[in-house]
Amino acid sequence: MASVDLNADLGEGFGVWELGDDAAMLDIITSANLACGFHAGDPIGLTRSSRAAAERGVRIGAQVSYRDLAGFGRRFIDVAPAELTAEVIYQIGALQALARVAGSDVSYVKPHGALYNTIVSHREQARAVAEAVHAVDPGLPVLNLAGSVFFEEAQRLGLRTVAEAFADRAYHPDGTLVSRREEGAVLHDPDQIAERVALMVQTGQVLAVGGTTIDIQLESVCVHGDSPGAVQIATAVRERLLREGVTLAAFV
Amino acid sequence: MASVDLNADLGEGFGVWELGDDAAMLDIITSANLACGFHAGDPIGLTRSSRAAAERGVRIGAQVSYRDLAGFGRRFIDVAPAELTAEVIYQIGALQALARVAGSDVSYVKPHGALYNTIVSHREQARAVAEAVHAVDPGLPVLNLAGSVFFEEAQRLGLRTVAEAFADRAYHPDGTLVSRREEGAVLHDPDQIAERVALMVQTGQVLAVGGTTIDIQLESVCVHGDSPGAVQIATAVRERLLREGVTLAAFV
Amino acid sequence: MASVDLNADLGEGFGVWELGDDAAMLDIITSANLACGFHAGDPIGLTRSSRAAAERGVRIGAQVSYRDLAGFGRRFIDVAPAELTAEVIYQIGALQALARVAGSDVSYVKPHGALYNTIVSHREQARAVAEAVHAVDPGLPVLNLAGSVFFEEAQRLGLRTVAEAFADRAYHPDGTLVSRREEGAVLHDPDQIAERVALMVQTGQVLAVGGTTIDIQLESVCVHGDSPGAVQIATAVRERLLREGVTLAAFV
Amino acid sequence: MASVDLNADLGEGFGVWELGDDAAMLDIITSANLACGFHAGDPIGLTRSSRAAAERGVRIGAQVSYRDLAGFGRRFIDVAPAELTAEVIYQIGALQALARVAGSDVSYVKPHGALYNTIVSHREQARAVAEAVHAVDPGLPVLNLAGSVFFEEAQRLGLRTVAEAFADRAYHPDGTLVSRREEGAVLHDPDQIAERVALMVQTGQVLAVGGTTIDIQLESVCVHGDSPGAVQIATAVRERLLREGVTLAAFV
Repeated sequence: MASVDLNADLGEGFGVWELGDDAAMLDIITSANLACGFHAGDPIGLTRSSRAAAERGVRIGAQVSYRDLAGFGRRFIDVAPAELTAEVIYQIGALQALARVAGSDVSYVKPHGALYNTIVSHREQARAVAEAVHAVDPGLPVLNLAGSVFFEEAQRLGLRTVAEAFADRAYHPDGTLVSRREEGAVLHDPDQIAERVALMVQTGQVLAVGGTTIDIQLESVCVHGDSPGAVQIATAVRERLLREGVTLAAFV
Repeated sequence: MASVDLNADLGEGFGVWELGDDAAMLDIITSANLACGFHAGDPIGLTRSSRAAAERGVRIGAQVSYRDLAGFGRRFIDVAPAELTAEVIYQIGALQALARVAGSDVSYVKPHGALYNTIVSHREQARAVAEAVHAVDPGLPVLNLAGSVFFEEAQRLGLRTVAEAFADRAYHPDGTLVSRREEGAVLHDPDQIAERVALMVQTGQVLAVGGTTIDIQLESVCVHGDSPGAVQIATAVRERLLREGVTLAAFV
Repeated sequence: MASVDLNADLGEGFGVWELGDDAAMLDIITSANLACGFHAGDPIGLTRSSRAAAERGVRIGAQVSYRDLAGFGRRFIDVAPAELTAEVIYQIGALQALARVAGSDVSYVKPHGALYNTIVSHREQARAVAEAVHAVDPGLPVLNLAGSVFFEEAQRLGLRTVAEAFADRAYHPDGTLVSRREEGAVLHDPDQIAERVALMVQTGQVLAVGGTTIDIQLESVCVHGDSPGAVQIATAVRERLLREGVTLAAFV
Repeated sequence: MASVDLNADLGEGFGVWELGDDAAMLDIITSANLACGFHAGDPIGLTRSSRAAAERGVRIGAQVSYRDLAGFGRRFIDVAPAELTAEVIYQIGALQALARVAGSDVSYVKPHGALYNTIVSHREQARAVAEAVHAVDPGLPVLNLAGSVFFEEAQRLGLRTVAEAFADRAYHPDGTLVSRREEGAVLHDPDQIAERVALMVQTGQVLAVGGTTIDIQLESVCVHGDSPGAVQIATAVRERLLREGVTLAAFV
């Protein structure tokens, strides 16, 4: 029987600003990627998100980022590797303390936004992030795309790598994501997305742009919750997977 | 035989900006209060300071602050207690991760600047800080002035409180510090300061403004290192104490 | 015939985060208080808000604040007067450039949040803000509560002061606002609020807590737009005033 | 008779942190590039720098930057052009207000650090900066390297471009700067540097790495002041130029 993890980004408000419906998402997902203060997430908000996740039995991961509140961590920054390592350690530690006080802990690390995308191929930054995670706790798994340079560096250090797929994103035939700047990069139809995810999970395949079917490795599926429509999509994905008999459970 | 701890603020640069001579101070002190990123201290700088402290066998404390880089944490901010608690937890956790990676750990907590001064008397913020420290680790000692409201709140939670005195600051007859905004608040003569600290440590007394001698409780003496003159003063204090046969050792 | 200005806070998002429905409010108000980047408002968002205001013929004011993104400028900060003056000049200048490029200009200054409330009574900060506005342009009017210390300082410098009332806030018998921390501080019923504002504008009186009717000076009424309910209230206020034959026009 | 402008970066502290000896530099240079708050420079510090420059008759330029206090604006950020334009407008406006209050004004724009280097070749960001300057004031000259893409974009909009050379930097045979990450990128000997600058100014030529002599266009020479050695070098450059009979004067 197939089993898969559902992850989503939570705790991405800052001060008075809110983003997404964390409460709704916590009823859908099995792993919550909490912001760590560098692209979003203030300590009191992260405390609330940590408590809510702990109460629902949803696992917490550290969504580490470039230091970029103004850009929500979505812009590449050419930060020196040693600084990036220190910044990732700082973020994981900060969230660990908040999560532990809330009765949970940081169970994995998922880089955010531009950092996530950059370390798919940028070796120096990939290594910097892998070294940070390893330095904090060599038992912490990391999430990224299968085949990424980040996974190479993480595996070299003995870290557990967890490949994820994106529910609502288009794929190139080589397995990389279509850039958000291109048309058709993001899918919007809940049923189509749910169908697509069910196929991914059960067959390990996905239809890429151009019409070819490609293999895709995944232990986790990323869903979004930053708009009413996004929550509806995530719900559709969850319900479809359950109907297909797929077990939704955190990766181990 | 008398024994006392010498503490100083370190890691208070940010990015390209440096402050103080951390290397010189690490040869003088027994406890290093490292900034945590809210008033000063970027992750790479704190990594360097943590490593340097670990190499010299100097213990690390978390110098938690209001979120105020522009004001160096020196302005009172009327932050809500629950937010302050979360901010202090975040800061301690971030420094714990950096310190542990550097082979050391956070051994105590010393609030910084305006937060330090505020919680001498502001009960809600005092309690917020005490609860944060307790939530992270009830075994973490806290530094402040003897008799502070912060100590009342900390002791109520069972935290170990460590009274400190300031080597270069004038005292009112009631044991509070003369505000930096008043003339004569800060002493500058190394010999006078060293003499004063030796007396404090050996007799538990200090000359207050106005000429009365008052009792002063202390297990630690705070020295500064943010100017060439400051390092010279700290050196004078250290040498005088050693000449008097005082043991310089971290509080336990 | 009575005439009154309607003002509201706009441009209060930051990066990915949005707050309020600026487009809806621009159809209701005559003066838009735009954030200046210190409590909210990034340059691209302020550019969009400035253009939208210019297109609708809504005047722009500079909503200057303490430097406090994390607290949305809602916490008192004990900033030194000279620094506050410089910070206010900086903010007005930044918004002037954006507004001018958008084909408009900064026509007045309204301090935001905790700064607004503080300078009702805090003389040093009140003077610091008044001096900043005067230094940038002695022809810029300032908004605050009638009778505030800020108005005293502003008038001393020859600045035009514009008293405002709050549509949805409860008043003490002495004309000060009931703190948001107290129950009943904010009114929620659109009809009641519209009625209240109509009375204020036409009779110069408002019902204070406790049941006494007090005199209230106003040339502008502040309405809010940061929630669907708030926009509905602002609409009710506008329509009621128009039905009563009140002219809605920017103060001169 | 040859005439040249000497420019340097000033106002690059932030809060408690200082950088460089602004007072010393103001006796050497003819144009002061003041930070605008995005990579350095808080409003009170910029006020002081503006006043000091105004008192010495040194012209003020806006040293606009990526939003990056932690990295001092030295890291490339992949910011969207429309956002960059708005950020540059914001920065120029903020400094204009401070400079005008200090009795001076912003007389030119010189991008800082990574932004300076990026727009030598990155067309989209180059255009974004040029459009920002043009939108604020089409009469504002801009500084960069001769032949840069930024100059192409600036000239297309009719902006006056002012080519500058760096006193203490090594050049490739194609006229680009040797990266600071490479050995020999920065020269340190005051006499050698002074000699080199004298040659640049009088002959329009400089010795590139590899030993070839190349043509170099310049109307301004950039000197540094962020260390005691740097001030000494800047002094040597100034004195040498004066001895050679070169007039030191702001470009027009």
